[in-house]
Amino acid sequence: MYSEPGYELLTSKGIKVGDRVRIRRKDGLVVEGILLPRYSISRRPTIVVKLDSGYNIGIHIDSIVDINVVKREEASLGEEAGSPAVMPLIEETEVFPERPFVVIIGTGGTIASKIEYETGAVKPAFSSEEILEAVPEVGYIANIHAESVMNILSENMKPEYWEQIGRVVAKYISEGADGVIIAHGTDTMGYTAAALSFAFQKLPVPIVFVGSQRSSDRPSSDSALNLVGATLVAARAPFAEVVVVMHGEPSDSYMLAHRGTRVRKMHTSRRDAFQTINDIPLARVYPFEKKIELLKKPLRKRREEELDAKIKFEKKVALIKFYPGMEPEIIDFLVDRGYKGIVIEGTGLGHVGDQLIDSLERAIENDVVVVMTSQTIFGRINMNVYSTGRKLLSIGVIPGDDMLSETAFVKLSWVLANTENREEAKKLMQRNLVGEINRRHTYTVYPRWIH
Amino acid sequence: MYSEPGYELLTSKGIKVGDRVRIRRKDGLVVEGILLPRYSISRRPTIVVKLDSGYNIGIHIDSIVDINVVKREEASLGEEAGSPAVMPLIEETEVFPERPFVVIIGTGGTIASKIEYETGAVKPAFSSEEILEAVPEVGYIANIHAESVMNILSENMKPEYWEQIGRVVAKYISEGADGVIIAHGTDTMGYTAAALSFAFQKLPVPIVFVGSQRSSDRPSSDSALNLVGATLVAARAPFAEVVVVMHGEPSDSYMLAHRGTRVRKMHTSRRDAFQTINDIPLARVYPFEKKIELLKKPLRKRREEELDAKIKFEKKVALIKFYPGMEPEIIDFLVDRGYKGIVIEGTGLGHVGDQLIDSLERAIENDVVVVMTSQTIFGRINMNVYSTGRKLLSIGVIPGDDMLSETAFVKLSWVLANTENREEAKKLMQRNLVGEINRRHTYTVYPRWIH
Repeated sequence: MYSEPGYELLTSKGIKVGDRVRIRRKDGLVVEGILLPRYSISRRPTIVVKLDSGYNIGIHIDSIVDINVVKREEASLGEEAGSPAVMPLIEETEVFPERPFVVIIGTGGTIASKIEYETGAVKPAFSSEEILEAVPEVGYIANIHAESVMNILSENMKPEYWEQIGRVVAKYISEGADGVIIAHGTDTMGYTAAALSFAFQKLPVPIVFVGSQRSSDRPSSDSALNLVGATLVAARAPFAEVVVVMHGEPSDSYMLAHRGTRVRKMHTSRRDAFQTINDIPLARVYPFEKKIELLKKPLRKRREEELDAKIKFEKKVALIKFYPGMEPEIIDFLVDRGYKGIVIEGTGLGHVGDQLIDSLERAIENDVVVVMTSQTIFGRINMNVYSTGRKLLSIGVIPGDDMLSETAFVKLSWVLANTENREEAKKLMQRNLVGEINRRHTYTVYPRWIH
Repeated sequence: MYSEPGYELLTSKGIKVGDRVRIRRKDGLVVEGILLPRYSISRRPTIVVKLDSGYNIGIHIDSIVDINVVKREEASLGEEAGSPAVMPLIEETEVFPERPFVVIIGTGGTIASKIEYETGAVKPAFSSEEILEAVPEVGYIANIHAESVMNILSENMKPEYWEQIGRVVAKYISEGADGVIIAHGTDTMGYTAAALSFAFQKLPVPIVFVGSQRSSDRPSSDSALNLVGATLVAARAPFAEVVVVMHGEPSDSYMLAHRGTRVRKMHTSRRDAFQTINDIPLARVYPFEKKIELLKKPLRKRREEELDAKIKFEKKVALIKFYPGMEPEIIDFLVDRGYKGIVIEGTGLGHVGDQLIDSLERAIENDVVVVMTSQTIFGRINMNVYSTGRKLLSIGVIPGDDMLSETAFVKLSWVLANTENREEAKKLMQRNLVGEINRRHTYTVYPRWIH
């Protein structure tokens, strides 16, 4: 793969992909690592080296003073014991019949792109070959097929796109895929994961969302390991659920598989930004050991059920956060504009100011389903304790139990599109469908603040 | 205090308030603890006993089979070593000149009420005498004066009330109070604490918010200890800041003093629901040891500055949470209704869907100040990383740095009411005024999830 003109320095020394090399650059930098396949056709010949830290670096051929193969006992450890940052490489897209068949669907976001080392530009990388070049490890876990269905920043995601992604996922699962990965921008990944959780309530294989908090041009990028973790879950997990797989802690030791209805992006930039709220994660994933450890009982086992998807979402649903002094006209406006559902992110146990009550009552009289969640994020709605809660219950506001506001919003959108009448919708909102309501909180589901 | 008719059982045995008693009830229950002053004038004679757990229980005289004084070495430990749940009692409201003078302002909520043990009803309790009866410990820390300025559930709080409370606080501080406590419902306590933080930027003594997550009729009530902690801070803290004092962990070992601009109610019902976000708390407060431990450098020391309060808030400010597919007409509506400021709780590093950009640009052209915060809660806005952020910056959206959405909302309300023009307002929104922006996050300000 480095046989094109410009790479004579490598061919002359018989250096090939997978070799451990030591490179000295004109500027004095010395780098040692495994030679990777090239990432792109470049005008200026460039090689890519995987460092022992697990990260990749691109080096222009014409900046190299010296390059040599080095032998090291620990090189190419592969599946063996320990946690080698260096994993075996494959050089071409082959199909190994014994390996599971995993489809990777690209929707955009940092994870679905690659860096051209020569230019520093981020561009979509989404053929199977490109993925295997960028993260060759996944080819050892599964036979990969990749398809890019859209290329958007995830803040531009919307219910129509949830449906579009869902249809592609359903197609591949009905064609026999052993698991589907959705590469997604992190900003709204939790919402889309919740959407597919409700759409795919009967599901034979895992649907795995994966993203990246740091782009591949940054030494701290989490994209490669997250993709390895996601591939492990898609290919081998014993459960058939919609999950998000992301770093479990800041270092590279393990990923977590979070249930799609319970996961929330809790930090703007940390690699362990994604966390399960009001529950524990479904599984821990060790990318180097290639091991999946279940932390709780799955909703469904792999290949236990036939696929039956209901991929439809109501678009006229709003998520409204209450704040002191909020004026009721905002509610009136939504009702007048034909909204069919409103999730109110209230305070504490599920409250809003008295000034909203008449407008909420009018909304409900106009057949709008109104659901209450809490802006505290942790805990559970209980509208029986204080007079405000009781008033809201009496006019027909639905308590959102311990659902995330974001999940309640997505669920309401799904429920309104898939039920015949409001009464059925209200009942479904209060019923646990796919783990979005957790009747019992152990004490440790509340995180520990350090002070 | 048990000399009225109906309490002959006590007087005949010479039992008095402060005695350790053992009681046997007709139903077989045996209770041992310290006899407290009565909480209310009751029709059915009732005594109140403080158990060793720290909690109080009311017992009808006519249900008592036997009552006796018991001696125990550990009784009435008071200020001594260890963490005795039993603290000394005072029986009347006296003024001790050597003690600091603390004002408690009641606004409503669970903390400002007491239980009538006979009826189980919660009713406002807000004279100095009533507070000293309910939590006699505070009388040992300070001379207490109490005033109830309103009696509302905190979901009904609004900017007009922030001003009303602020004016009363300013009056007492200018009259020489050594500290002011505001008893407040927990639902929106963080918002009001932020409001007073911005209003009282020059402040000689502490302003301490305190609330209660469990009402006094529940054995797990946190009201008494929170009030003791708040009184300690108001009377003795070395700083002059606006803080929230609440349980630091589920048990009764310590309270935390959180800076008013950084505190958020993170759980619907836990006693340690209040947490400092993107920073560490200002101090730890040990109610039994009567000790305050500073955890970080205060903004101002006690009696370092003269009072200079700016107690005015703009009411036409909205806090809008972005969600996938959100329609721009909600922004248009706010602009058309004359809103002067909008805080957008965006995704990730500070993004919203492209569909909102034109409406936000129109808002800004109409002199609406638009500020971006993140729904991830933790972390910091950075709108330079992705194209959406850069677009938003270019139309004039103000990055909210690491401010809480709720604090940014309150700050915008304060800034718009206290500046002459939009440019000055925009500058102030990006300047750290009272700890609401923290330029440096240590790694441990992100809580630890347990899994």
